[in-house]
Order: sequence, then C-alpha cells, then structure tokens
Amino acid sequence: MNTPQPYNQRKIVNDPVHGFISIPDNILFELIEHPYIQRLRRIKQLGLTSLVYPGAVHTRFQHTLGAFYLMGTAITVLRNKGHQISDEESIAAHAAILMHDLGHGPFSHALEQTLIESLDHEDISLLLMERLNEHFNGQLSAAIEIFKGNTGKLFLHQLVSSQLDVDRLDYLKRDSFFSGVSEGVIGSDRIIKMLEIKNNELVVEGKGIYSIEKFLVARRLMYWQVYLHKTALVAEKMLINALKRARELSLLGKEVPATPFLETFLRNRFCKKDFLTNPKILDDFTILDDNDIMSALKIWRNHDDRVLACLSASILDRKLLRIEVSDTPFSDELIERHKEEKKELFGLSTEEMSYFVFTDHVSNSTYKTGGENINIIYKDGSTKDISRASDMLDHTALSKPVSKYILCYPK
Amino acid sequence: MNTPQPYNQRKIVNDPVHGFISIPDNILFELIEHPYIQRLRRIKQLGLTSLVYPGAVHTRFQHTLGAFYLMGTAITVLRNKGHQISDEESIAAHAAILMHDLGHGPFSHALEQTLIESLDHEDISLLLMERLNEHFNGQLSAAIEIFKGNTGKLFLHQLVSSQLDVDRLDYLKRDSFFSGVSEGVIGSDRIIKMLEIKNNELVVEGKGIYSIEKFLVARRLMYWQVYLHKTALVAEKMLINALKRARELSLLGKEVPATPFLETFLRNRFCKKDFLTNPKILDDFTILDDNDIMSALKIWRNHDDRVLACLSASILDRKLLRIEVSDTPFSDELIERHKEEKKELFGLSTEEMSYFVFTDHVSNSTYKTGGENINIIYKDGSTKDISRASDMLDHTALSKPVSKYILCYPK
Amino acid sequence: MNTPQPYNQRKIVNDPVHGFISIPDNILFELIEHPYIQRLRRIKQLGLTSLVYPGAVHTRFQHTLGAFYLMGTAITVLRNKGHQISDEESIAAHAAILMHDLGHGPFSHALEQTLIESLDHEDISLLLMERLNEHFNGQLSAAIEIFKGNTGKLFLHQLVSSQLDVDRLDYLKRDSFFSGVSEGVIGSDRIIKMLEIKNNELVVEGKGIYSIEKFLVARRLMYWQVYLHKTALVAEKMLINALKRARELSLLGKEVPATPFLETFLRNRFCKKDFLTNPKILDDFTILDDNDIMSALKIWRNHDDRVLACLSASILDRKLLRIEVSDTPFSDELIERHKEEKKELFGLSTEEMSYFVFTDHVSNSTYKTGGENINIIYKDGSTKDISRASDMLDHTALSKPVSKYILCYPK
Amino acid sequence: MNTPQPYNQRKIVNDPVHGFISIPDNILFELIEHPYIQRLRRIKQLGLTSLVYPGAVHTRFQHTLGAFYLMGTAITVLRNKGHQISDEESIAAHAAILMHDLGHGPFSHALEQTLIESLDHEDISLLLMERLNEHFNGQLSAAIEIFKGNTGKLFLHQLVSSQLDVDRLDYLKRDSFFSGVSEGVIGSDRIIKMLEIKNNELVVEGKGIYSIEKFLVARRLMYWQVYLHKTALVAEKMLINALKRARELSLLGKEVPATPFLETFLRNRFCKKDFLTNPKILDDFTILDDNDIMSALKIWRNHDDRVLACLSASILDRKLLRIEVSDTPFSDELIERHKEEKKELFGLSTEEMSYFVFTDHVSNSTYKTGGENINIIYKDGSTKDISRASDMLDHTALSKPVSKYILCYPK
Repeated sequence: MNTPQPYNQRKIVNDPVHGFISIPDNILFELIEHPYIQRLRRIKQLGLTSLVYPGAVHTRFQHTLGAFYLMGTAITVLRNKGHQISDEESIAAHAAILMHDLGHGPFSHALEQTLIESLDHEDISLLLMERLNEHFNGQLSAAIEIFKGNTGKLFLHQLVSSQLDVDRLDYLKRDSFFSGVSEGVIGSDRIIKMLEIKNNELVVEGKGIYSIEKFLVARRLMYWQVYLHKTALVAEKMLINALKRARELSLLGKEVPATPFLETFLRNRFCKKDFLTNPKILDDFTILDDNDIMSALKIWRNHDDRVLACLSASILDRKLLRIEVSDTPFSDELIERHKEEKKELFGLSTEEMSYFVFTDHVSNSTYKTGGENINIIYKDGSTKDISRASDMLDHTALSKPVSKYILCYPK
Repeated sequence: MNTPQPYNQRKIVNDPVHGFISIPDNILFELIEHPYIQRLRRIKQLGLTSLVYPGAVHTRFQHTLGAFYLMGTAITVLRNKGHQISDEESIAAHAAILMHDLGHGPFSHALEQTLIESLDHEDISLLLMERLNEHFNGQLSAAIEIFKGNTGKLFLHQLVSSQLDVDRLDYLKRDSFFSGVSEGVIGSDRIIKMLEIKNNELVVEGKGIYSIEKFLVARRLMYWQVYLHKTALVAEKMLINALKRARELSLLGKEVPATPFLETFLRNRFCKKDFLTNPKILDDFTILDDNDIMSALKIWRNHDDRVLACLSASILDRKLLRIEVSDTPFSDELIERHKEEKKELFGLSTEEMSYFVFTDHVSNSTYKTGGENINIIYKDGSTKDISRASDMLDHTALSKPVSKYILCYPK
Repeated sequence: MNTPQPYNQRKIVNDPVHGFISIPDNILFELIEHPYIQRLRRIKQLGLTSLVYPGAVHTRFQHTLGAFYLMGTAITVLRNKGHQISDEESIAAHAAILMHDLGHGPFSHALEQTLIESLDHEDISLLLMERLNEHFNGQLSAAIEIFKGNTGKLFLHQLVSSQLDVDRLDYLKRDSFFSGVSEGVIGSDRIIKMLEIKNNELVVEGKGIYSIEKFLVARRLMYWQVYLHKTALVAEKMLINALKRARELSLLGKEVPATPFLETFLRNRFCKKDFLTNPKILDDFTILDDNDIMSALKIWRNHDDRVLACLSASILDRKLLRIEVSDTPFSDELIERHKEEKKELFGLSTEEMSYFVFTDHVSNSTYKTGGENINIIYKDGSTKDISRASDMLDHTALSKPVSKYILCYPK
Repeated sequence: MNTPQPYNQRKIVNDPVHGFISIPDNILFELIEHPYIQRLRRIKQLGLTSLVYPGAVHTRFQHTLGAFYLMGTAITVLRNKGHQISDEESIAAHAAILMHDLGHGPFSHALEQTLIESLDHEDISLLLMERLNEHFNGQLSAAIEIFKGNTGKLFLHQLVSSQLDVDRLDYLKRDSFFSGVSEGVIGSDRIIKMLEIKNNELVVEGKGIYSIEKFLVARRLMYWQVYLHKTALVAEKMLINALKRARELSLLGKEVPATPFLETFLRNRFCKKDFLTNPKILDDFTILDDNDIMSALKIWRNHDDRVLACLSASILDRKLLRIEVSDTPFSDELIERHKEEKKELFGLSTEEMSYFVFTDHVSNSTYKTGGENINIIYKDGSTKDISRASDMLDHTALSKPVSKYILCYPK
C-alpha cells in the first residue's frame, strides 16, 4: 500500500457525531470514492425505524465513515501505549472497516429473509471485497485478511469485528444521536482510551470496567427501545411480507413492476452458486438501494393483487398493523381467530390473511459468552471476563438471550 | 376545531434537535398522519447536499415537526407575556406550520426549474391545503387564512412566514445539526423568549438585539457554507440538466423509463390551469418523492443517450463536474473554449456539451429590507429596524444581495 | 401562599444544564433571594473533587436551582396525566426542594465528621427551614410538611427525597456535566416523562424500565468514578485530619487563627442541645462556607504545628498522600510499618503519624431495597420493584453494598 | 527541555469543554503541578459574574488547561500543513500558554484598580515566569521569549497573544459553556483548522472568513451579554469600593481584619519597585485568591464602619445597587441628587455616599485594527484584513469602541 500523503491532499469530512474526519491516505480516499461505498449513501442504517424515530434516517455511509474514524482513534491510542502497528497495518485495518458493510442491501433483514436467502450480508461483503481487491490490484489483500481474522495481530480483526469493535462503538453512538434516544449514548472516547492488548488480543484496562458495564446496558437499552421497537418491528415484518408476496406473484408470472435491479431478484431464486458463477447477479446487487424498494411500494400500492397493494400502501402511509408483545408464545387458536375475524372485512382468503395476521419472536443477548468475550486486564496482567469482573451485572442474566413473542393483526 | 385532548391520548415524538415533541391535539395528530404529510418523510430537506455533508439526510417531515414544536414554544411565550391567543388560534397556527411545506417536491429547486415550471412550491402548498381542508370538513380554514396572511393577528402569519418565522428558526438549527456545521447553530430558544407583539406584529425585545445579529450572521454562514456550497451547487445543476434532458428525450418520443408518477411530468408540460382542472395531476404530484428521482437516475445511467447516461452516473457515483466561483461573470469565450476542448473526448456535439459546460449565478441577502423587517422594540415602546438598531452590522451591506458566478465543466 | 404572578414579574435564570429556569412565583423568588440560599453559591457541590476533575467547581446553589427546575417539570408531567396537584401544593413542593440542601456546610462530610458531629446536615436543614418559616410568617409550613413526609400526597415528598427524587436526577446530571464524565449523563427528561402515581406514591411506567436500569448503572458509575474517586477520597480524608488537628490544638488552648465563624466551631464542641438553645451557633453556621476553610488552610500552612502545617500545604498544593484500594481490610502490621518507616523522615511521633498513615473503608449500594423502592407499574395496574422487574440487573448484587478499603500513607 | 515521554507516564485530565486533555511532556506536567499554577484553581475566571450566571464559577486553572489543549491542536494543524515547529518550540509554546495567566489575582480588575495599582497582571505574570524559570533551571527561557514576542516564529507568540490567540478561543467557548449563554459558542475547532502561516505570522485561510465573522460577532455578544452585563458590572464596582474603603480605613490605622496575605496589600501602597526589591511582596501575592476576598467580606459585614459593612453585606447577599445604562454621560446634578436623596436614609455623609452613588463608563471594540489584525490569506497568497475581506461587517463600526455610561445608586 501507499505511504501516507501530506496533509494538503487529504480530505476532511464533517460528521455531526465525531466532528471532522480526516482521510489520511490516498488509497483509503479512493476506496471511499468507489461506487460500492458511495452506494451506502442510499441505504439507511436503520431501515424503517424512522417511522418511529423520524430523525433516524442516517445512512450506512455515515456509519462507515464513523467507524473508520474510531479505527484511527483506537490505533493512535494503542500506538501511544507502546504497541507496534505499522503504517501498512493501519491502512489495512482502516480499509477493512471501510468495507465491512459492503454487503448490506436495502432493508437488510427484509431482503435476507425474502429475495436473497442464500447468502447473508457478510458473504456478499466478502465477494465485493474480492472484486475491489482486483480493481485495486491486490492492494486490499491485507485488509481482507484482517476482516477474515487471518492475522497474527488478532486485535486488528477484533477492532473490525468483536463485541467491542469500532462498528458497534459507532453505530450505538450514531443511532442514539439520530434517533434522539439520548440515553443510548456511550462513552466511545473513554472506552477506546481504555483499550489494551494482551497476547495480541484486545482487552480493557481495569479502570474501564464501569464504562463497559454502561456500554452493555446502553446497548441493551438501544435494542429494546430502538432496534426491536415494536412499531419498527411490525413495519419490517410488513415489508418482508410485501416482498414475499411480490416474489410469489412474480414467480407465478404476474406482472410486478419494479426497477430492473429489483426485478432480477423478484423473478429468480438465486442460490449461492449463482452469485459465484454469474457476475451479473452481483452487479445488480451493487445497484440495489432503498430507492428501489420504496419506488416499488409506491407502484404496488395500486396493484391488482389486494394483498400486495394493501401492504404497500400501509407501509407508505404508516397505517401499520396492531402488534402485541408477550413473554410467551401466542396460541394457534388466537391467531386463527384473528384471521377469521377480519377476513370477511378484507374479502381475503385465510391463506391471504396470513400476510396480515402472524406471529414471530425476537430475541437479544446483551452479552455473548464464548469465543469473543470482553476481557478486563488488571494491573498484575491477569484478565477476567467482564461478566465475571463486574460485581453488578448478573453473569447468567447477562448472556441469556431475552425472547419476546409478537402477534400482528389488523386494527 | 376540536378542544385540546387529555394527555394520555397525546402522542410524543422524539426529535434529536428539540427533544420530546408533544402533539397537543387530535386534529393536529390526524393532520400529521395524513399521507400528504407522511410523504415528507421521503423528501430530504437539503436534496443533494448530503454529497458534501453526509449527515445532512434529514427530511422535510422532521423539519415540519420541528417548526411545529417551535410554534408551540412561541405561542406559550407570547401568552405568558399577556397576549391573548385563543385555543382555536393556536391550533390554526400549528396546523398552518404543519402544512407550510406540503408543496415541496423532491429536490424542489431542480423540479421547479424543469418539470414543474408553471407553479412554485407555495402555489402547490395552497392547492394541497385546500384539498386537506375539504377532507377535514373545513376545519383547516383558519389555518389557511393564517398562512395567507388574512388575519387581524398578523403575528400569527409572521410566525409561519417572515424573516423570523419558526420555519427559519428550525431549519437553520436543524441543517446545522445534521450537517455538522456547528457554527450555524442559532439560539432559537433565546430568540423566541425575546419575541413580543406590537400593533399585532412580531417584534423583538431590545435585549435580544445581539441574538438577532448572531442569527443573521449564522444564517449567512449557513448560506455560503452549506446551502450554496459549490459542490452541492454543481450536483444540483447536474440533476437539473439530467431532468431537462430526460424530458426533452421524452417529448421527442424516446423511451425514458421512470415510475408512473415521474413519467407524467416527463411526458407533459402542465400549465397552472392543468393543475387546477385535472385533479389527477395533483394526485400524481402527491406521490412523487426522492425515490422516484434516484431510481430513475439508476436506470438512466444505462440509457442509450450518452448525455443522460453520463449525468445520471456522475450524480450517483459522485463524480461531479469541476466548478469555479467568481465575483464577476465568466466570458462566453471561456465557456465555448471549455466546450470545444472536451467535446471530442466525450464524442458529443457542441449542443450536447452545454449539459456539461455551463455558467450560472447564485446570490443571497443576509437580510431583506422592505415589508418584512425584523423590528426591535425598546422599553419606551418605540421600534427600530434591526439594520438600524445594530451598531455593528453594516446597514447597506446587510441588505445588499451578494452574487457569485459559477462555471462548471468536466475535469 | 400567594397565587402565581404574571410573567413579566417572573425571573429567568440561565443554567448550562437545563437551559432557562423560570421562577414562577414571588414567594419562591424571595426564598431564593434569602441569604440562607444565597450562601449555597459559596459551597461547592463536590468539595475537593475538583482536584481530580477541574471542571467540578459547581455550587450547591446551581444544584438547588436545577432540582427546582426538575420539580416543575415533574409536576407538569403528573398534572398532564390527570393527577390533581393544586397551585399551593406545587409551590410548597418547589419551596421544599429549594430548602432541601440548606443544612450543608462547606465540605459537608468533612465537617460532619469533625466540627459538627452532633447533627447531620438534614437536622440543620430542618432547623433553618423553621427559621425561614418564621421569617415568611408561616408561609413555608406546607413545604416543611412535604419535606418531612407528613402529607397525604406522599409522591410530593418522594419527589423531594427518595431513590428517584429530583435531587438525585439533578445532581447526577450536573456532576456528570461539570466533571466531564459524560458517561454519567442520565435521561432525566425521559425518566420524568415516565413518572406515574399509584396510591399516592411515585411509580414508573413499564416502558421506562430501561431508563431506570440505565439510571442505576450511571449512578453506580458516578460513585466509583467521581464521588468515591480515590484521589478525591484521600484529599477529603486529609481535610478531615487537618480540621481534627486544628480543633485539638484549639481545645488545648493553642492559637489556631481562622475566621470568627469557623473559630466558634474549632473552640467548642457543641451538642444538639446547644444548637437548639443558643441561636448564635446556628447564626454562625449560616455564615460558614468554603472560603472559611480554604482561607484557614492558607494560614495554617505556616502554623508551628508541623502536622497541621503539612496537611494544609499538601491540600492546597495538591501534593496528596498515596492511596491504595483493596477489597479486603489492610492489616494493622502494614499500617504500623508505614508509620514507622516515615516517622523519622518527618520528625513526628507515632501518634502524629496517624494523621498521615491511616485506613478507612467506603461503600455504596447501587440500589437500596426497603421502604423506598423504585416501583414499575404495568398496564394492568400491578407494580413490581425494579430489582425484580429488570431481567438484567442482579437482584442481590444490586442492593448489596460494595465495600472498598483504603490505605493512605506518604509517598 | 526534555524530549516527549512515553504515553504511560502522561497524565490525562477530563475537561467538560474539550474532553480529554493529555499532558504530553514531563516539564509541562511539573509546571502544572507547581503551586503558582495550582493557585489558579482558587480564582474564578469571571469573578462576580456568577451572581448573574450561577454556572459561571469556572476557574482560571480550567481555562489555562483549555488554552493549553488548543495550543496543541493548533500546532498539530500547522505541522500537518507542512510548517516546521520543533519539539522544543512546541513545548515552549505550551509552557508559555500555561503561564499566561499567572499574574491574575482574585477579581483581577477589582484588585488592579485598588490594592495593586502599580502593576497590571501582565507585569506580575512576567515576574512570576522569571521566578519559575529559576526554579526550573532556565528551562522556561524559550517559553518566556515566546510570551514576550521575541521569536523569529512570531506566529507562536500570536497563538499566545493576539486577536486570534488560543487564550481567546478557549475563554469565549468556556465562558459561554459555563454561563449557559449558548449563543456565544464559537467554532474553535474550525477556526484552528483554518489557521495558516505567512511570513511567520498567523493568517486564516480564505474559506475561514465566515467563521471569523461569526467569531467576532459571538465575542461581541459575550461582551454585552456576559462580560459587561450590568448586574455583574455593579457587583464588581461595589467590590472595588469595598476594597478601597477597607484600604482607606486600614491606612488610617483602623483595624480591618483579613488574612495576612490580604492585609499586606491593605496596609501598604506598594509601587513597582517594591515588587522588584522585596520578594516577600510577590510571595504574598502568590497566596492571594478568591477565598481571601470573600472571607474578608464576611468579616467586614459586621465592621463598625457602615460603608464597609453595608457594601460587604450587599455583595454577599446579592442586594445590589440599582444600575442605569446610557449612551451618554450622566449629569453631575443627577448624581448629586441621588446622593442627597438617600444620605439621610443611610445616615451617611455626602463623601460616604460616593461609595453608593457613582458613575463610570465601559467600552468594547469588537475588533482592533492596528498592529494585531486578523488577516485572511487567499489562494494567490495575498492577504487582506478581515474588516476589509468581509463584505458584511462594517469596517468602521467594527473597530470603533462602543461606550456605555453607567450610573449606580441605592434602590
């Protein structure tokens, strides 16, 4: 990779969350300029959550830049503590974080549960990284190895992907900032100041323990208050149902107008092999963004199929289904009763009603034990998992997923 | 209109700029729920400015709610100072501000200069207000009269539209917040606390003079640093040229794919009368949003017409034309030279080159003298125009528009 | 009490934490103007903590105004939810919170452990409230009853004093703000919005549970990171020792110069009865503030007594003793060894060395179970203690005090 | 000077305004630890202004650290733009800014107009710097030369002292932050990012022009709204009168109790020569802080002299004189009339009444033309004074001092 360039050629971007973000190197600047990353400007970080929190329309592009900024901060802190990180390694880690979200499509979860079931967004990210690496003549190889975890300096990978990665540090802060849920704000500055390395792995200084406790609690709060907010959930489920319905109609040969890029995915069921053998599919994917979905909904709201039309209009006009949340599953009888009750009103079959009456469950662990623990390092060099180090957080509760069941039906 | 409802039925919205925003009344809540206002969720406040300031993707919907919030604050302040404002008047003023941006299409200026030349967004706002008023059985009549300025309590109109209206107070603060240009932040709280009424007109208490000075300087700073930022300007000009080209091709009978709502405006040149006599046109308008334009650009980037294809791709990938700014006009020779230089490279005719090489001028007055002065009121009851009251701002300079000429051409 | 006054006579105070604070009533304004409350301008909220966090020099006066502001917010929220709170009750609750910190002397804990052992600050607060009530011709009686908890509307007392009182909500936010420990910031706005009343007691709406969890974690973080910061602790212990030494010398008849008000307390050991029978003692107390202590230290740094001189100079110049923290008590042998080691160096007796070598322990419960629980109310009207309602916080851990032992000795 | 130390030995201070402030070098850390700088912890930045803005109790110590932080930022920016600044020069500039406020006594202006008339705070700063330089074995020589302006790299001096120095950039931001006058906030980050050097002098990049305009307007606003706020003015004048009276009584041989350090200055009229020849005087000065003054006022409120007693009590209890402000001088008749009116009520002589009835004038220039202009540099390398470069600020008005006359008298 290139060596760092003098300042005058560097670009600075204004970010409402972190302030000025400098791009410290030409290849990183070129990477940001690439259409694959520019596309992230057109994909909202939180999908339909802005139906609940109107401010939360920030994009994956902003988040990518923010995580990139925190990577620079973390590397500076670690270097200042005496750890060797070469310029090449630094650039590679920066490039890795720039590319970490490449594989996200619009409304990621909706897409992954409907039109692109065969790969998840991390698979696609890797495919796109390989493409970019060709385009940049192999200059991104080190970055990709960091992304995959193939590096002796495992902490570089952990900065990109772990329970304390800069991805999380940025998105929690950013989602909190834009949604206006100020309680979710985390002390990313302080947490980064507390990072240390032991045996090439990321650990946290002992005095950072309260910051980590607070980080975990804030994360949990953001889950229940924002990411799994029931109104956002029902909107997303309705979008999933709309896309499912559109594909079914399309596969049955009905006309379901959409932009050409979206049509590709409506009309076909691609498996992973198709992605690998037919470059056109990935090409189309790299053009997809929120606009294709929203434009389609606007056309579909006038579709002959009443299910598709009704779901589309409801999302656009924010006339959402009613949603109930419970700690225990909803009975089949209850679900059937809801279907029967409304089906005449809607003039739909029982099968069609399943697009409007359905159940699901969501869950979240505040902290995952296993391979990716957050470890606290003490002055004597010993380390302890945060769930053991904290005298407040309940070790078992912390790592046990909390499940909630939801039931949606028309008002 | 209805009387205020008890709190439990009121809705609260989280806003990152103002905090919690309460909707104090049922009719106002229903108005916000209406698809005409929900549409504003899909129109960015600052169009393509996010190409410069990635955070600036906030929507007209957020701004509308923010201005609505400030209206409430202003009315409370004025009532606390002993001025009579009835509940009906308050609700009407709130409704007026909720509707003030209804007529904005996606990328307003681009559209008003190309596809919808015959009306400006204020005309369309009024048409839509009338429609809403029918829908709400005349309950919005008072709001519309306030919007038009047909009210004895002129200050209510001035809160909606003047050089110190809540529209401006919100958008300056909000645009500053989301762009990250923190210097543009204004003390909207303090300014509102300083509002007074004299002869039914809005004035500012004497001790608010420094706040107003600062408001004007911040506004000016936002103009040059954000609204008229040269990169945002060139992007907008390119979008205008893309839309112009698309319509020309369309009028020539070429196929220019787009969503049905956008197609309507590409294929026809509607005059004001058409809008008034054919309700379908306004219907289509109320569906148009940013997604139609962005989706179209993504399709057009592969269009046979090289001009349209190139402009579309350039906007999407942020490969913008070079732009020069000058205090004086650019010579015709210079413009022609640029066209000639590059036309062979592009394989375009001189006429086609005018989409890529062009000049324009932009201007801004920090303060407009005339009918809508900002007046300072002194303890003796006398008033003075801010440009006279301030011993620092240059009276002439303040109100003289500053003009800049721009020249755009390929790199 | 008086009825609310028109706005123009109301005063507004600028607060960096909450913004504009209005004083909504004459008697409240007069109360704030009284020298007893003005004195709080000269007492820092966090004593010597500014030796660690230089920004933390905010005063008890600011905090008092801030808690006063939150009282107003809380009452508005509760009224809007349909609960009856009369103007008189509102004014009384406001007055109660204005007076809640009256009894704090300078460096409260230091004083309560040395010069004024017989009463704690709450006793003195009550004595001063009674005096003020006389001054205000009984107009503060209702406020005092609320402060004491003698009111049917127990929630008014709980707003003044409980685990979720406006005192705490303000000081956590304020101490976090001024110390710069941004992680301690709590969502006081949101918590207050979630307040409800059941059986005349304060409860929290079910959807506020995450906010309360976060409040408790933030509070805990503030304890360990700010209130019990080891450098602040050692400074406070040294101040206690300086005051103890000064009094001992004084009682032995040695001259220990100080302001007359401080001298009173150095030369005498007043018991509670003295306070009640001799009004001059309370008079002197109401003049004491941080300035008396700091001025005295500056004089004492040149005192003949080496212990007093050394302690005084060390605090002023921030040359603090070394402090060690441990989960288990320090052994007597270790303490003696430290004394022996340094006593020759200092030329002091073993007894004198106990001012420089000492141990102590500090403890903190994140949450106290017992009479003052924070209760969550569910939609069906049932309530549950937060430590049971939260599926994350460890019930036992939450309420178990965490103890730390400290050992201080010269470097 | 020493070379920079590894990070682990570096200290970090939490600042609510700038965040974490690192002390990058041992000598700088030792300098901060010195009692001369620690003393600034006990001197409020804004004296009695906290009587108006209760939050404004921040200290000169915090400000010193803040300016220190901005110095580091500015040096990094300039180095990144390719300007050579050696480690020694950087440390010297940092040391210079750490020492720039050394000479401030408590309530500086009050003291300089009464007890210490012969020197201003800058003279004393230099005396103290020389002493520190001896203590540090000459290691501060370069810093002192920068402070005095004796350096080829004039921009280093200008960072310490000019119309765009880091002193001003910090205090405007800090005073705005702590007073809660949020409109005074300046974009110090952006201004520093725009700094450049031409001919060894500090200039500002062309695109920074709006930031400078805003800086000047914010500064002006802070002057009228905070620094010259009429309530703060009258409080300061009363303090000056109290100190004058105390000295007069003291010189007449009356007992005026005070701490020994304050007594020195009450009982003597030192001229500059005394300071230079008698080191004890400077010693006493270095112990003086806000506590001496406030403690004295508390004692004096019971003094036999009614003038001293009344002034002291009034300041402490915030019962201030009435103050009127005018653009023109007040007539002698008016002043005499006020004296006559109240003198019987107070039982004072006409001469004594002059402590309670007096006039004065205050003035402020937003921008000073002359040797210390703020210059804008254009892309062609030419420079222009900001008052000429700005098309909005009125050149003449900008630099013309605005004068106000005040008249104070008892209510």
